[in-house]
Amino acid sequence: MQKLGQKARAASRELAKVDTGAKNRALETIASIILDSQNELAEKNRIDMEAAEANKIEAAMLDRLLLTPERIEAMAEGLRQVATLSDPIGEISNMAQRPSGIEVGQMRVPLGVVGIIYESRPNVTADAAALCIKSGNATILRGGSEALHSNQAIGACIQRGLQAVDLPGDAVQVIETSDRVAVGELLRMTDYVDVIIPRGGKSLIERVSQEARMPVIKHLDGICHVYIDGQADQEKAEAIAFNSKTQRYGVCNTMESLLIASSIADTVLARLAPLYEQAGVEIRGCQKSKDILGSIKLASEEDYATEYLAPIMSLKIVDDVSEAIEHINHFGSQHTDAIVTEDLSAARKFMTEVDSSSVIVNASTRFADGFEYGLGAEIGISTDKFHARGPVGLEGLTSQKYIVFGDGHIKE
Amino acid sequence: MQKLGQKARAASRELAKVDTGAKNRALETIASIILDSQNELAEKNRIDMEAAEANKIEAAMLDRLLLTPERIEAMAEGLRQVATLSDPIGEISNMAQRPSGIEVGQMRVPLGVVGIIYESRPNVTADAAALCIKSGNATILRGGSEALHSNQAIGACIQRGLQAVDLPGDAVQVIETSDRVAVGELLRMTDYVDVIIPRGGKSLIERVSQEARMPVIKHLDGICHVYIDGQADQEKAEAIAFNSKTQRYGVCNTMESLLIASSIADTVLARLAPLYEQAGVEIRGCQKSKDILGSIKLASEEDYATEYLAPIMSLKIVDDVSEAIEHINHFGSQHTDAIVTEDLSAARKFMTEVDSSSVIVNASTRFADGFEYGLGAEIGISTDKFHARGPVGLEGLTSQKYIVFGDGHIKE
Repeated sequence: MQKLGQKARAASRELAKVDTGAKNRALETIASIILDSQNELAEKNRIDMEAAEANKIEAAMLDRLLLTPERIEAMAEGLRQVATLSDPIGEISNMAQRPSGIEVGQMRVPLGVVGIIYESRPNVTADAAALCIKSGNATILRGGSEALHSNQAIGACIQRGLQAVDLPGDAVQVIETSDRVAVGELLRMTDYVDVIIPRGGKSLIERVSQEARMPVIKHLDGICHVYIDGQADQEKAEAIAFNSKTQRYGVCNTMESLLIASSIADTVLARLAPLYEQAGVEIRGCQKSKDILGSIKLASEEDYATEYLAPIMSLKIVDDVSEAIEHINHFGSQHTDAIVTEDLSAARKFMTEVDSSSVIVNASTRFADGFEYGLGAEIGISTDKFHARGPVGLEGLTSQKYIVFGDGHIKE
Repeated sequence: MQKLGQKARAASRELAKVDTGAKNRALETIASIILDSQNELAEKNRIDMEAAEANKIEAAMLDRLLLTPERIEAMAEGLRQVATLSDPIGEISNMAQRPSGIEVGQMRVPLGVVGIIYESRPNVTADAAALCIKSGNATILRGGSEALHSNQAIGACIQRGLQAVDLPGDAVQVIETSDRVAVGELLRMTDYVDVIIPRGGKSLIERVSQEARMPVIKHLDGICHVYIDGQADQEKAEAIAFNSKTQRYGVCNTMESLLIASSIADTVLARLAPLYEQAGVEIRGCQKSKDILGSIKLASEEDYATEYLAPIMSLKIVDDVSEAIEHINHFGSQHTDAIVTEDLSAARKFMTEVDSSSVIVNASTRFADGFEYGLGAEIGISTDKFHARGPVGLEGLTSQKYIVFGDGHIKE
């Protein structure tokens, strides 16, 4: 593992110097190699699938593990899309002359070596590598043990592609062992790894946060809220509250909790509740909402702090925007929260005071992702405030250094 | 400590909402209260000074501990200067419409609660509090135990000033115990502290980095280089190399190591070496430089990795800019490194490939600080790449959240 780290550090120094054209050529070449290697990839994937089936792994996980021809094509397409994104590296900003006569600005540079730990989906190997290559970072990838052969085969395609355009193959390394101890060692290699990104379930993210000795870009829960204000347009409110919950259940930017201003709760619920019922969504509400709706289950404190990732939601009737903000800052997970209102003051207050990575006015929480935000692609969503917050794209994988120009200037 | 953390978190929510005018009024009021409390501050400082003298604390530390009328005035002046800086909070950037029709941008927000651990100088209490107040962050301050009474007295002035303009006094709390255990607890309060900034000697910074469970903004060593290229203007080279080392010895942006291209080493050293000798600077050099200079001590590997903070420097003759870059990336501390050259290609290469928080062309390394860079004030210099790199001013104490505007938009 130490050797792997050293090789990654050396490759990161090389990659940091490479121009945009060469990085794009690498991505295009890797895409072609992946398409040309369809049979080999399918074969290696079959080994993983057979082992997983023998181990009686659950159906959803088996599905995520499977590499179909469509998924292999999507990987190649993903690589090509990253090639089309603009390169953040080398961008110079805020250049200005200072009273001393020197000129000071900032230049965008890679972070160095990015460690990524992920679960089952083998396509993450290609997606994550693409973003790291484009942002000039070397990467050490550690996928799930059940996808070992698939990940290695994809990793081999990536290394061949890098070498074909004279970039260091070590810029992308897939850890070859499924040994759990290797992860522990990776999380302590502060000399060789600049940042760790865990992508997967809560237990993985918690383990990484606890053990990593370097910075971690992570998101834990997505307990997202929609607040329907007293001044909401009811049609918009209905559409947004319904879409935020039901467009997809198992993802982090799905609404888990609906707050409604008491002044319009009756009329809003009269139209919304049947829609949720039709969609098979269970509502757990406060006493006031139970008084309106009748047969629903009462929500506990824990319900308001739960990311269901399922057709279940909590509901609370609040006095006004202030109570909604307080509730969100207390029970939310600082991920994504939305207000529906036509009242500018309420929108402004919500926008300023809700302490979440995405704050939305009059749109569905489901928009909170890197593609919708125009980042091109995302390596994850961060619910931390440090370094990167919200969807993390190429820029989140970079840093800025100060650059100074003088003409023999010395300090008096 | 937990209670203190809870109070800080609550105050941070309040402070995040406060407008710029109110924050500036708080800073001005605190400045006036500090000036009005000169006698009381001097009295409390005397208690610390007497205890320190009784404990036979060394003279340099005693000097740092002392609060003279001039230093008290400088504290007040510092507060007023921070009031004149522009407020980063609420700044909206990158607002753009996306293909879906939503508008997406980023709003600058406070980090939340900033913990600052510092040594002897009591003025840090006021300086750090000012930057935190202006950037909308609550802060928990923990000064050196030898300055306990001075820090508490300054802390009381700050709290009175905050309350006088109806801001929460708990926005700035000075830890009241000199117990070392309290620091350990602070470093584990991830629920209440968003970032820790240690300011002091290496052992403090190392302890904090090891124990903190939240992000740390820190700088360890400042092993700064000046490289005199073969194409350097010799007068500029001489002035910059001399100024970078001798303008002040004990600070982090002082040059510790000089690299000279072999093609001009003879002529440069013929003029520079006598200047260093006159200034009482000891040179430890490579064999080639010893061949030129004669009587100097040979530099060991360790010399090249040492931050002397004293009138000692290491010297190495290198082939060219490539060898200089390699040496710096290997032995340096990613703090501040400068090249002196008239050759654009060499400057461009050095600027791109030296992996340091400040990279300087044709100016002294001593310019690397927040004031010279126009940040107005700095809370520290970061040699990390994550979040903030180089001098950290108000913006380094902030984060950005995504803001989204729609008009009833839902995700298809």
